[in-house]
Amino acid sequence: MKLKHILESQQFTVPMLMELFERTNQMKKIVARGGTRDYHNKIMCNLFYQPSTRTRFSFESAMHRLGGSVISTEQATEFSSEIKGEMLEDTIQIISNYCDAIVLRHGEEGGAKRAAAVSPVPIINAGDGSGGQHPTQALLDLYTIFNECHSLDGLSVAFVGALDYGRTARSLAYLLSKFERVKLYFIAPEETQIKQDILDHLEEKNVSYELANSTQSFLSKVNVLYQTRIPRERLLNQDMDLSPFYIDSASLQKMKSDSIVMHPLPRSVEINPVIDTDPRAAYFRQAQNGLFVRMALLTMLFDTD
Amino acid sequence: MKLKHILESQQFTVPMLMELFERTNQMKKIVARGGTRDYHNKIMCNLFYQPSTRTRFSFESAMHRLGGSVISTEQATEFSSEIKGEMLEDTIQIISNYCDAIVLRHGEEGGAKRAAAVSPVPIINAGDGSGGQHPTQALLDLYTIFNECHSLDGLSVAFVGALDYGRTARSLAYLLSKFERVKLYFIAPEETQIKQDILDHLEEKNVSYELANSTQSFLSKVNVLYQTRIPRERLLNQDMDLSPFYIDSASLQKMKSDSIVMHPLPRSVEINPVIDTDPRAAYFRQAQNGLFVRMALLTMLFDTD
Amino acid sequence: MKLKHILESQQFTVPMLMELFERTNQMKKIVARGGTRDYHNKIMCNLFYQPSTRTRFSFESAMHRLGGSVISTEQATEFSSEIKGEMLEDTIQIISNYCDAIVLRHGEEGGAKRAAAVSPVPIINAGDGSGGQHPTQALLDLYTIFNECHSLDGLSVAFVGALDYGRTARSLAYLLSKFERVKLYFIAPEETQIKQDILDHLEEKNVSYELANSTQSFLSKVNVLYQTRIPRERLLNQDMDLSPFYIDSASLQKMKSDSIVMHPLPRSVEINPVIDTDPRAAYFRQAQNGLFVRMALLTMLFDTD
Repeated sequence: MKLKHILESQQFTVPMLMELFERTNQMKKIVARGGTRDYHNKIMCNLFYQPSTRTRFSFESAMHRLGGSVISTEQATEFSSEIKGEMLEDTIQIISNYCDAIVLRHGEEGGAKRAAAVSPVPIINAGDGSGGQHPTQALLDLYTIFNECHSLDGLSVAFVGALDYGRTARSLAYLLSKFERVKLYFIAPEETQIKQDILDHLEEKNVSYELANSTQSFLSKVNVLYQTRIPRERLLNQDMDLSPFYIDSASLQKMKSDSIVMHPLPRSVEINPVIDTDPRAAYFRQAQNGLFVRMALLTMLFDTD
Repeated sequence: MKLKHILESQQFTVPMLMELFERTNQMKKIVARGGTRDYHNKIMCNLFYQPSTRTRFSFESAMHRLGGSVISTEQATEFSSEIKGEMLEDTIQIISNYCDAIVLRHGEEGGAKRAAAVSPVPIINAGDGSGGQHPTQALLDLYTIFNECHSLDGLSVAFVGALDYGRTARSLAYLLSKFERVKLYFIAPEETQIKQDILDHLEEKNVSYELANSTQSFLSKVNVLYQTRIPRERLLNQDMDLSPFYIDSASLQKMKSDSIVMHPLPRSVEINPVIDTDPRAAYFRQAQNGLFVRMALLTMLFDTD
Repeated sequence: MKLKHILESQQFTVPMLMELFERTNQMKKIVARGGTRDYHNKIMCNLFYQPSTRTRFSFESAMHRLGGSVISTEQATEFSSEIKGEMLEDTIQIISNYCDAIVLRHGEEGGAKRAAAVSPVPIINAGDGSGGQHPTQALLDLYTIFNECHSLDGLSVAFVGALDYGRTARSLAYLLSKFERVKLYFIAPEETQIKQDILDHLEEKNVSYELANSTQSFLSKVNVLYQTRIPRERLLNQDMDLSPFYIDSASLQKMKSDSIVMHPLPRSVEINPVIDTDPRAAYFRQAQNGLFVRMALLTMLFDTD
């Protein structure tokens, strides 16, 4: 299955996800063998209008493990010294001459779609605006669950943190709704709960869900605890006790032996580093999966059929 | 023909230009086949004292398509955390140990020549000062005309914009003067007209030219319309009506069917994007030629005979 | 001999240094032949919390000459746009998934050791804090002396400059103390003389040394004159005449015909460029050795036995 662009997680059907995951498994093996040179004649461009070294490194490493080359900027706003605010469309039409795929991080929602409309080479959306998409993060999250839990059907997944603007939680909830007998928990300070549009979507898809403001009664129930940050500046009561949302050794004792804790990273205080050595702490494996998933996505863009 | 350094467009004789264009045609074919690995043991260094992502990407892509490696900085002024204002000569003598060619963008006119005086590896001038040279831009412009018009003799070329400090227009006018029966038009607000030194040079070479302040009467005559920006802050009357210098669909209707519109990019309002799809809009092809010309130049620097 | 990490110059025993120098000699030959592709499946990451283009370029060139790939940032403090001050340990655990070695420049003394404690891939300390280590600089300095003087036993070496916080002088003095019949001179304005801890170490190792405040009487005696900067802001009397510490043609006339002048670069006024063409001016060769030594160190980290 050939992909043209990677713009939003919604574009992936279940068969596409399964092909992606199969390719991702292959990439794991390829990396273990030292990578491949198969894509040595491909150039990937990182066109970042905002710095995000983590995401940039993940894509660059993926491209190098495939044998390809990279050109990169994290200051695309200063793309030209002459004209501030050059049209994104012009930049894309120029840059597309210099590479075989463009990884775009743009400040405005819809930036990736505008780029794709004029680009002769694949556009990969690496985040467009705070309300926008970051589909490769959602895909690596889903792959991590698939890989750790061996299935995506019948899972109980709790999202914890400030979920209203939580791009990762929103996208992953959306993707999980494609699978059978999924149960979702949204655990957040009330004023930062998941937005109604996601809940409407879940109801439409007959996915059962529950809202709560403490992890306590859910720790023993979930297969996946997806932890995210709670910025204090987002809270009505900035002195609020946030410990019901934090994870430590005591929390882990209540969790199933085959459950996992995920986090998109970087973390702040919401996961105590003492649990890092517990096999259920899956967040560093999750970061590593970012490499394999991005390699797999690049091959799906590059392979001609 | 082996090149030692690329410092200024004047260094290129007509036979050298013809060899460059022949190599550039070869590079086009090589890129269409997915590039070459022939220069895999070469390292190119981008030493930029000012950011210019567009030029940097073009050179990096050229090097990667040749199979080579790149080391790069756009903040060479912060080259050392210890000493501000280290001598360019010292920097070049150190960096030249780490690469096989240095692409230098420097803030001061003559920077490239100073670098070349001490460098054991080729220096490519990628712009030195606002009054300085940017020879690879001039060469890709000339190649574009050659490639689109199939000849450089007998052409009518109009330069439009603020031409007095227009490095691209000045360099290209100089290069075109080497060819037969060329006719040049300089169309600019009076206070930004092309400088007398270029006109003196054209007279010496018996190149006919004309000055004007509107494109109107020239649109039907030219083979090439070379459009550049007019920064309002440069004008005596900042409310001046600049529409006589701008290009849109109506302008194009008056132009020959085999003429072309060029622009060094980025553009501002002087070219209406509605004409982008017209086959005569050559500016994105011009940007692409930057890749092929730079590849060709690199091979002329690297090849030992 | 396999290295796990490169954290401080003290970790190198004399046999390890000799193996390093032998490998360095091999790397010189490999570069003369155009490099190798042997490490094409390795990725090196430059994780710099402070810019240091010179050191970064040296490592990147080394990796490319070995056939490998590089991912790089000089703004690791902005590693995440979300959380300022992410734990170094977390960053390392994530980045180590994307590469086979991490070259770390960190702002805090001990940063490299903290990174090594959690990293599954080798950490190379490229400077950690002003009081910290920069072992690859010390190793390339020692190799340069070895290569130029053909031995490390029986040498007279003068260090000149502000030596108290001079990381290079301190580390090199330490390494030289491992060899036989070495004689060291420390020539500095009194308030910036080498610190007592180094002198204590030299006494413990029975290395003879002398302190002075002018190079004059030592020029004829030394095999190596290791010149460093004297920042005026460090001096009690900022109008002090520093010419007794500076090197020019007159100084060189007093030096042995087979002696050498070294400098970690960048230089300021302490070495007059007129001596650059004298064969005893070894500082640019020293910079070049940085490439070969770093290549050798990378192979010692990558080779499995």
